Amino acid sequence: MTKEQLYQQIQQKKSYLCVGLDTAIDRIPTHLKETADPIFEFNKQIIDATKDYCVAYKPNIAFYESLGSKGWESLEKTLDYIPDEHFTIADAKRGDIGNTSKMYAKTFFETMNFDSVTVAPYMGVDSVQPFLEFEDKWVILLGLTSNKGSQDFQFASQDGGIPLYEKVLRKAQEWGTPENLMFVIGATHPEKFQEIRAIAPDNFFLVPGIGAQGGDLAGVSKFGMNESCGLLVNSSRGIIYAGGDSENFAEKAGAAAAKVQAEMALMVK
Amino acid sequence: MTKEQLYQQIQQKKSYLCVGLDTAIDRIPTHLKETADPIFEFNKQIIDATKDYCVAYKPNIAFYESLGSKGWESLEKTLDYIPDEHFTIADAKRGDIGNTSKMYAKTFFETMNFDSVTVAPYMGVDSVQPFLEFEDKWVILLGLTSNKGSQDFQFASQDGGIPLYEKVLRKAQEWGTPENLMFVIGATHPEKFQEIRAIAPDNFFLVPGIGAQGGDLAGVSKFGMNESCGLLVNSSRGIIYAGGDSENFAEKAGAAAAKVQAEMALMVK
Repeated sequence: MTKEQLYQQIQQKKSYLCVGLDTAIDRIPTHLKETADPIFEFNKQIIDATKDYCVAYKPNIAFYESLGSKGWESLEKTLDYIPDEHFTIADAKRGDIGNTSKMYAKTFFETMNFDSVTVAPYMGVDSVQPFLEFEDKWVILLGLTSNKGSQDFQFASQDGGIPLYEKVLRKAQEWGTPENLMFVIGATHPEKFQEIRAIAPDNFFLVPGIGAQGGDLAGVSKFGMNESCGLLVNSSRGIIYAGGDSENFAEKAGAAAAKVQAEMALMVK
Repeated sequence: MTKEQLYQQIQQKKSYLCVGLDTAIDRIPTHLKETADPIFEFNKQIIDATKDYCVAYKPNIAFYESLGSKGWESLEKTLDYIPDEHFTIADAKRGDIGNTSKMYAKTFFETMNFDSVTVAPYMGVDSVQPFLEFEDKWVILLGLTSNKGSQDFQFASQDGGIPLYEKVLRKAQEWGTPENLMFVIGATHPEKFQEIRAIAPDNFFLVPGIGAQGGDLAGVSKFGMNESCGLLVNSSRGIIYAGGDSENFAEKAGAAAAKVQAEMALMVK
């Protein structure tokens, strides 16, 4: 998917919501557990209920992998089921030496047909570049993450006194363009968004951390948005588990997504 | 597996070789391609031929993932086939927020029964800790990697003038012990081994980069070894593809492993 196509969808839906499919077998409603593929059945109903309110879906690969080859099948079926208009993100945090990153890129862009994959920057240029070589596919590189551990290394000051995450944002812009490179910027650092937007003015940011992790949508939107919106704000648990163990879990997830979309409609550019 | 069990195996075999199972479908000998599961068939014969010369096997997860759920099945069968005495490494470079890292840990330590998994440090403490909570299981954390891109961020100087990789080595020793934490230190930086061994005197190092990547076994061994050996030196392509497309590929892989083991026998402590 191109940046322009993504932006058109954002404008049409007045939404920059990404729904995170962190589907855990022990949090699926009881009545689904008897079905042949409970993970896929859950995702299918969640997608049906939320698709008009969001522009992207982000399966969290860990949750599928943890079920072995069967989980991998559920993931493949889920990806096939997501409507073509939605931007798809393999949240995988991959990154390895060049010939291995090439295999990971192949996994998510060829074997499966994701639009993008999240990538960890620690191993540098040749761990990222193989993902950038696919047309209309995207790297979403970890910049400043939403978790507590982001304090350990990402803020450590670097050559020239800049923090590591800033070095990552600057360096990576030498490797990719706003047409194939986004950054993960956690919503739990709202005070940083203005500064980070200045460092990477044209790149989309994937923003995890609203909902269960406590980030602030209004603050992130105010300081993080650019002229093409430039934000994909993710909510996982706050939407997909909004209905708990009830039979109408999908309806409740849809309502939770609609609520976030309504807030977004007031802010989207 | 405990550190003591690993060290006993090293002493018995006079080897600290890890064979990397980077098994690519397009590099498998032609005559295997007609079998029901060529990846597993290749690995099985490689394991039979090399098991007396190595103490560890390291499947590179990217290569299996790239084949989808079928690749994942080949991986599960390969892991089951590796003899119990060998230390097993899921080379996966995972790392995410706490609840997601927990799922990755579950993948490799429960759904599959690997002894260890490679983990990327960028996201800090809560991305690493869930892997450390399993008894007799190991984190192998990226320290200084073997690739060109290691120059981009790992050498950047940090608070107090130390490079990032050193900060990672020091910080991670607050999270794990030499009984559950190893570091990846690339063989392509032999001049750094003495200094790195002083920073982490008791941890095992997983050392990629000899063979295809050009690292030097003697230099690494001289400066990297500690009193319990403390090294697992990996070779992937240099061993498993030693026989090219020939029918006796496994025999040639065995000979390549035996050659490395013979060098190691002269140096092992």
